[in-house]
Amino acid sequence: MARDDRGVTPQSEDFSSWFNELVVRAELVDRGPARGTMVIRPYGYRMWELIQSDLDARIKETGHENAYFPLLIPESYLSREAEHVDGFAPELAVVTHAGGKPLEEPLVVRPTSETIVGEMMAKWISSHRDLPLLLNQWANVVRWEMRPRLFLRTTEFLWQEGHTAHAGEAEAMRETLTMLDAYAGLAEEIAAIPVVRGEKTPGERFAGAVRTYTIEAMMRDGKALQAGTSHYLGVNFARAFDIRYTDAADEQQLCHTTSWGMTTRMIGAVIMTHGDDKGLVLPPKVAPHQVVIVPIGRGEQGEQTVLAARELAAEVKAAGVRVRVDDRPQLSPGFKFNDWEMRGVPIRLEIGPRDLGAGSVTVVKRLGDEGKQTMPLDAVAAALPGMLDEFQQLLFDRAAEFRESRTATVDSFDDLRTAVSEGWARALHCGRPRCEEEIKAETAATPRCVPFDSPEETGACVRCSQPSAYGKRVIFGRAY
Amino acid sequence: MARDDRGVTPQSEDFSSWFNELVVRAELVDRGPARGTMVIRPYGYRMWELIQSDLDARIKETGHENAYFPLLIPESYLSREAEHVDGFAPELAVVTHAGGKPLEEPLVVRPTSETIVGEMMAKWISSHRDLPLLLNQWANVVRWEMRPRLFLRTTEFLWQEGHTAHAGEAEAMRETLTMLDAYAGLAEEIAAIPVVRGEKTPGERFAGAVRTYTIEAMMRDGKALQAGTSHYLGVNFARAFDIRYTDAADEQQLCHTTSWGMTTRMIGAVIMTHGDDKGLVLPPKVAPHQVVIVPIGRGEQGEQTVLAARELAAEVKAAGVRVRVDDRPQLSPGFKFNDWEMRGVPIRLEIGPRDLGAGSVTVVKRLGDEGKQTMPLDAVAAALPGMLDEFQQLLFDRAAEFRESRTATVDSFDDLRTAVSEGWARALHCGRPRCEEEIKAETAATPRCVPFDSPEETGACVRCSQPSAYGKRVIFGRAY
Repeated sequence: MARDDRGVTPQSEDFSSWFNELVVRAELVDRGPARGTMVIRPYGYRMWELIQSDLDARIKETGHENAYFPLLIPESYLSREAEHVDGFAPELAVVTHAGGKPLEEPLVVRPTSETIVGEMMAKWISSHRDLPLLLNQWANVVRWEMRPRLFLRTTEFLWQEGHTAHAGEAEAMRETLTMLDAYAGLAEEIAAIPVVRGEKTPGERFAGAVRTYTIEAMMRDGKALQAGTSHYLGVNFARAFDIRYTDAADEQQLCHTTSWGMTTRMIGAVIMTHGDDKGLVLPPKVAPHQVVIVPIGRGEQGEQTVLAARELAAEVKAAGVRVRVDDRPQLSPGFKFNDWEMRGVPIRLEIGPRDLGAGSVTVVKRLGDEGKQTMPLDAVAAALPGMLDEFQQLLFDRAAEFRESRTATVDSFDDLRTAVSEGWARALHCGRPRCEEEIKAETAATPRCVPFDSPEETGACVRCSQPSAYGKRVIFGRAY
Repeated sequence: MARDDRGVTPQSEDFSSWFNELVVRAELVDRGPARGTMVIRPYGYRMWELIQSDLDARIKETGHENAYFPLLIPESYLSREAEHVDGFAPELAVVTHAGGKPLEEPLVVRPTSETIVGEMMAKWISSHRDLPLLLNQWANVVRWEMRPRLFLRTTEFLWQEGHTAHAGEAEAMRETLTMLDAYAGLAEEIAAIPVVRGEKTPGERFAGAVRTYTIEAMMRDGKALQAGTSHYLGVNFARAFDIRYTDAADEQQLCHTTSWGMTTRMIGAVIMTHGDDKGLVLPPKVAPHQVVIVPIGRGEQGEQTVLAARELAAEVKAAGVRVRVDDRPQLSPGFKFNDWEMRGVPIRLEIGPRDLGAGSVTVVKRLGDEGKQTMPLDAVAAALPGMLDEFQQLLFDRAAEFRESRTATVDSFDDLRTAVSEGWARALHCGRPRCEEEIKAETAATPRCVPFDSPEETGACVRCSQPSAYGKRVIFGRAY
């Protein structure tokens, strides 16, 4: 089949190949030597740093402190919470030898840290005055995935995991929802990804949680991507690890705990929400370079435009914009235009000898306007922040419209089947795990969540006609 | 033996117990369940974040970009560089099982990343136009230590590791020394730790390096601590991993590579450089709280001072100072004073009812001035930044004087033995590894480095009387 001249299969032709080829081609990531691992290259890691710094601020503003817990966890810890070990045992990487000798007890490489954090919380908490305990860590985790995929499901990934302990259920539930809001804020305001906030059905809960909340985003192939989850763990881990406090009446009580995580998968979500046939389209707030300036011309003229580009870049930088001058001498302007388009830079400025003579600059947006426009050279730097904000909003609106156009309210199983073949279905469901499994077997769709914001509604299950659960419609979709 | 009322052995009595007890008591760190691992608690992790953000800026200003390489490395990679595997093999933690099955090839948990970075560099570099390649990563590493010690030698630690590739030796050597300067800048300007910059003798080099440079600091027990190292790796790793480029004349050449690292050990250096019998003494630039305000008084008076403390804290924060109000109701002022002294907060402000009536505040520095001083309440916020700068400088000067007073220039082995029993010795040495080993066996001291800034000098080896090497004196000391 036809490939474009940069060697990436068009999105419209094969979404999966487009993604796998593009993330490598755009130098976001490369494959590591161990199965399912990835190397995050500077262009991809810079996106992660931008996501991190925003989310870290949200985590700190809501009263949490960062800490760091060990990577290696005694194998026996995981077994203390029965559902937790069932969920994670098949995915564990296990250290059996260290320092040249077999270990007495094998150590697992953390797949998540509820167990070791629980053990330490039990040590640190004694009185109600020690509560709430609000911790977060930025770390790597390892889960041996059956079908690894770059950014979306890698054997090792980077994330933050929050872990908190509270005196009661109400406070712990507030915490769980506060952090879901932080994730939704990051997704919508920074990554320009509209998300549905909702609760997972019991079959889709985190292993060991009482309630799991999620933000779900729709990718450009109509599939859902879970972009962040927040769990109310009840007293399950408190009981398993003996996390207790003495209340004001001097009685021993179990803590209520929560955990919540957001990962490098978010970069995958950005790519699959905004990208197109030409390659990446990056929201300015997560773009390593928000603006690229390409000077054009050979010989003396070329030297002048390079000089002008550097002067303009200094002004643009002073306006608070991340800018890069592409003055690589060995490459043609056409190559550079394609290259930065493929790499998703929001705005490209071109300065040729004619522009310079006219005191103007050519402005090309990655998306939105047709063609090129010309601006006075001395007005560009001041105009760019506003243009970037508009570009950010454009991406969000476009993604929201796309999601809406691919979401159908359905009342028959045939309509559900049609809806999930290209997007999402809002349907009434009986809530029985068995019925969920049958839907999955026949359509590959799963319940993504019970959305917070959908109206109350009851009726017959879309598949089995038994009375509906949850009091509202559930969103079904195929998912990453 | 006598312990003070906070339960920490005085430094003057037993340095080692003081350190081990203090780091736990001050809530910097706790012991993890797996042997030699540590949990970094929020107070300690905040110090790491402050160190990180300064060093990350230095790394980026010098043209490096952050990336992330996988934790798990095929065991065979390490064997490709002969000295490297000899150095690290005894310390490896090995994953032999994953996903419920034995692995075909075991994976080591990275002890450092030269091998996997080398493998990727070989893939990414083809032309001289791809050079220099300047990468850094912030990561965890695991080394199975024989004698683990909190912060100083833990089984897992956090660090950054820089990895760069260059077209020639001169440029790679410049890079190696540039990054040593970055470490020295961090140590001296941020951690208030004076350091000696120098080169390691061949016996103390990094496994696989051609040259290893170090910054060495003196702890308050007179021992040396290596606080950061930078390595010129020559073409050793380039040859092992086939990192080649085509030069301008279209010839294939091997790259010259470097690596350099700074770790959570730096927190240990801060503690052991500045701490005293009362506990931690933190340089303001790495102090989680630079100022603590303790309101004093009961009942209505207490409410008023808490209110005043909060108002003052807002002003102090607006002046760019990290401030905390300690209004814990159940604790006495005396307890709080001791607590924050032990935790090393540079400046404490006390507001009692009498202070409030007089429009003043009581100021107590953790070190320096004797006793308390009184300042007008409305002048405090503006004065604090300057006072904190002075405090930072005071700590640096005090440490520099201490180091000078404990460093002796020696010309006999007896004098060397005496000098290293309480500090460092500057001595001429023959440079023979065998002679180094004998000195170590008899005095526990090792050559810390050949300092850049010491004058040219030659003569007889302090121990064996053979002609001296290096053209200058070597620093010997016992070390962590």
